[in-house]
Amino acid sequence: MSPNEPAALRIIEPVSGSADVPVVGMVGGGQLARMTCQAAISLGIWFRVLAGSAADSAAQACAGTRLGNYRLLEDLRDFAAGCDVVTFDHEHVPGGHLDALEREGIQLRPGAAALRFTQDKLAMRQRLSGLGVACPAFASVRDLAGVEQFAAGRWPVVLKAVSGGYDGKGVWVCHTPAEAAVVLGHGLPLLAEEYVAFDRELAVLAARSPHRQGAAYPVAHTEQRDGICREVVAPAPGLAPGRAAEAQQLALRIAEQLDVTGLLAVELFETTDGLVVNELAMRPHNTGHWTIEGARTSQFEQHLRAVLDLPLGSPAPTAPVTVTANVLGGDPDIGDRAAIYHRYAHVMAANPAVKVHMYAKQPRPGRKIGHVTVTGDDPGDLLDRARRAAGYLRWGKEDGQ
Amino acid sequence: MSPNEPAALRIIEPVSGSADVPVVGMVGGGQLARMTCQAAISLGIWFRVLAGSAADSAAQACAGTRLGNYRLLEDLRDFAAGCDVVTFDHEHVPGGHLDALEREGIQLRPGAAALRFTQDKLAMRQRLSGLGVACPAFASVRDLAGVEQFAAGRWPVVLKAVSGGYDGKGVWVCHTPAEAAVVLGHGLPLLAEEYVAFDRELAVLAARSPHRQGAAYPVAHTEQRDGICREVVAPAPGLAPGRAAEAQQLALRIAEQLDVTGLLAVELFETTDGLVVNELAMRPHNTGHWTIEGARTSQFEQHLRAVLDLPLGSPAPTAPVTVTANVLGGDPDIGDRAAIYHRYAHVMAANPAVKVHMYAKQPRPGRKIGHVTVTGDDPGDLLDRARRAAGYLRWGKEDGQ
Repeated sequence: MSPNEPAALRIIEPVSGSADVPVVGMVGGGQLARMTCQAAISLGIWFRVLAGSAADSAAQACAGTRLGNYRLLEDLRDFAAGCDVVTFDHEHVPGGHLDALEREGIQLRPGAAALRFTQDKLAMRQRLSGLGVACPAFASVRDLAGVEQFAAGRWPVVLKAVSGGYDGKGVWVCHTPAEAAVVLGHGLPLLAEEYVAFDRELAVLAARSPHRQGAAYPVAHTEQRDGICREVVAPAPGLAPGRAAEAQQLALRIAEQLDVTGLLAVELFETTDGLVVNELAMRPHNTGHWTIEGARTSQFEQHLRAVLDLPLGSPAPTAPVTVTANVLGGDPDIGDRAAIYHRYAHVMAANPAVKVHMYAKQPRPGRKIGHVTVTGDDPGDLLDRARRAAGYLRWGKEDGQ
Repeated sequence: MSPNEPAALRIIEPVSGSADVPVVGMVGGGQLARMTCQAAISLGIWFRVLAGSAADSAAQACAGTRLGNYRLLEDLRDFAAGCDVVTFDHEHVPGGHLDALEREGIQLRPGAAALRFTQDKLAMRQRLSGLGVACPAFASVRDLAGVEQFAAGRWPVVLKAVSGGYDGKGVWVCHTPAEAAVVLGHGLPLLAEEYVAFDRELAVLAARSPHRQGAAYPVAHTEQRDGICREVVAPAPGLAPGRAAEAQQLALRIAEQLDVTGLLAVELFETTDGLVVNELAMRPHNTGHWTIEGARTSQFEQHLRAVLDLPLGSPAPTAPVTVTANVLGGDPDIGDRAAIYHRYAHVMAANPAVKVHMYAKQPRPGRKIGHVTVTGDDPGDLLDRARRAAGYLRWGKEDGQ
């Protein structure tokens, strides 16, 4: 391995001065931008990424990478000036900056008004409840008395940061007032939510374009541990057709009512009483990675088509069942990128049909660094294959079950 | 559309100093490198392209692009110094340079000895004939007397440039000595070949790794016009299973005997007497684009796996039939990139399942600027859909059949 190279060859900038096809800019340099870049290459459009660091996942792949800080309006403004449409691979751009960009005529998709509901969970709950969408009971809480009043003796209670959470961060399941007191001690604006005794978690992805065309993917079953999605099976095995259609209609209705342009991911609890909305995201989503191989149109291409106001692609499945398993960073003594690469040989030899997607991120415990996908007929068999592949990439042989 | 942007944001160079995962370098900045870049992103490896211009198809997409001239040994050497493995998206690197790089310890895959058979068609014919592989009758010719002696009164005769041809360039079907005289007038080293009266043209792709693992894809039917591949149907409809297996075995055998590492594309004539080898290429190939959606492992991923000596991926099909149609540049008055982009709406609305792959190349008449792919059950229906989509992207509505 010889990463060093002479400086004799020029580092180049792609030519984009011909105003020929649209320029889509994505704020955020993570794996979602990295995989959107792959889809942009097929569409032959210009694609730019605003990354925080040249080491970011998307920065390593995308020719159209710009370095900047999404928390600074001037960096956002400079980035947007080179784009026809600006979209996002995360929901952490300050809302005030989004408003300012829109006032300046920048085409944000989704727009600031829609994105607000991914940045403010209280606003999201209030809005969805106002639409009659089933949500957990919720209340804004400021102190322990407020939490205890909300709980009314029924514990556990879920406390959530009103903004800024992801991958289980910013969500606390509190079994006692004492646990709640610790969370309150963080000093964050908090929301209390009913703990939902769900049968399983589902996720449904829909896309909506400025033309108001909508398309919903088959509903997936998602398996979460510690607030992080580990596995996705699509379509969700054994889901009643009526309930699947209900979930898809729900996603399309929320997308319409919230004026989402681009993708909307709706995470749901399936309970004995029906579907309850857990979280929303307005971008490609970890629970939709199965669509790369498992649907006619990947979620990344679909997001681009939606934000470009192109006709949406078919969300039809390409196989009876598709399973993805996330690869999480493991013990730092075992798993750097080189060590993980050396395990490719085993994973690929064991299953020549497994699709490996690695994000070029340095492994840290619990960090999503890749995913694997398998397609076929039998969910149990596919789950077994995907778990083995992901587990082996993550830890080594002994964790490969 | 706003291609201009302020210079405030830094143009960045991907971080590749950590010697963590291998660096694959591909010489050539065309669409094959562009699509190989997409596969490299999934594998999480470092991928570099040596492009002649920042406007090259791959240069617009690939973060790891270097500008240089593949005809210059020093540019090749500088490029290779940053790579663990060097491979190619065309066969035009001078053979002497390949030899020199190998002597200096550069890992070329395929190696110079194998590549020679894609650069020198006379050497290819001699070698294949020596292996007992069915080829058209051939002879090196230097003058009209030589051509007439070869023809022995049976016209047409095919004249081919010994090196440098592609997409029908460098191939002439001569129906009379007068036509042959015109070709001889070009002053190129020429090969005369028997004109094969074929039933149809087939193509088979195989991969071979340094470990000597081999994998062959289903055999495709290719439809060529003016020496340019227009349509590919995979698997070839109605091909006898025994003949399909024969073609796959042939490709694997040639790959082994010629010590190919990476992909080998074998273009074949199917005749009433059996299979006859037409051309060889040692790289991803236009006749293999169907594998992006139509096979478990795309040819681009497979090439990377082979040159990295990773276990090869499954070449199994994902659908009963996959059809691709090339999009060729048309009348320059009609089709610049912007005009073609505006037709996306129609193509995508008419068929939400068609996959559009555009190469970000300026259209010139006859130039391959993209392809479309559809998968399904009925070859006739799929051909119709693919032709409509490609024809519409190419020319406009009136040519859309």
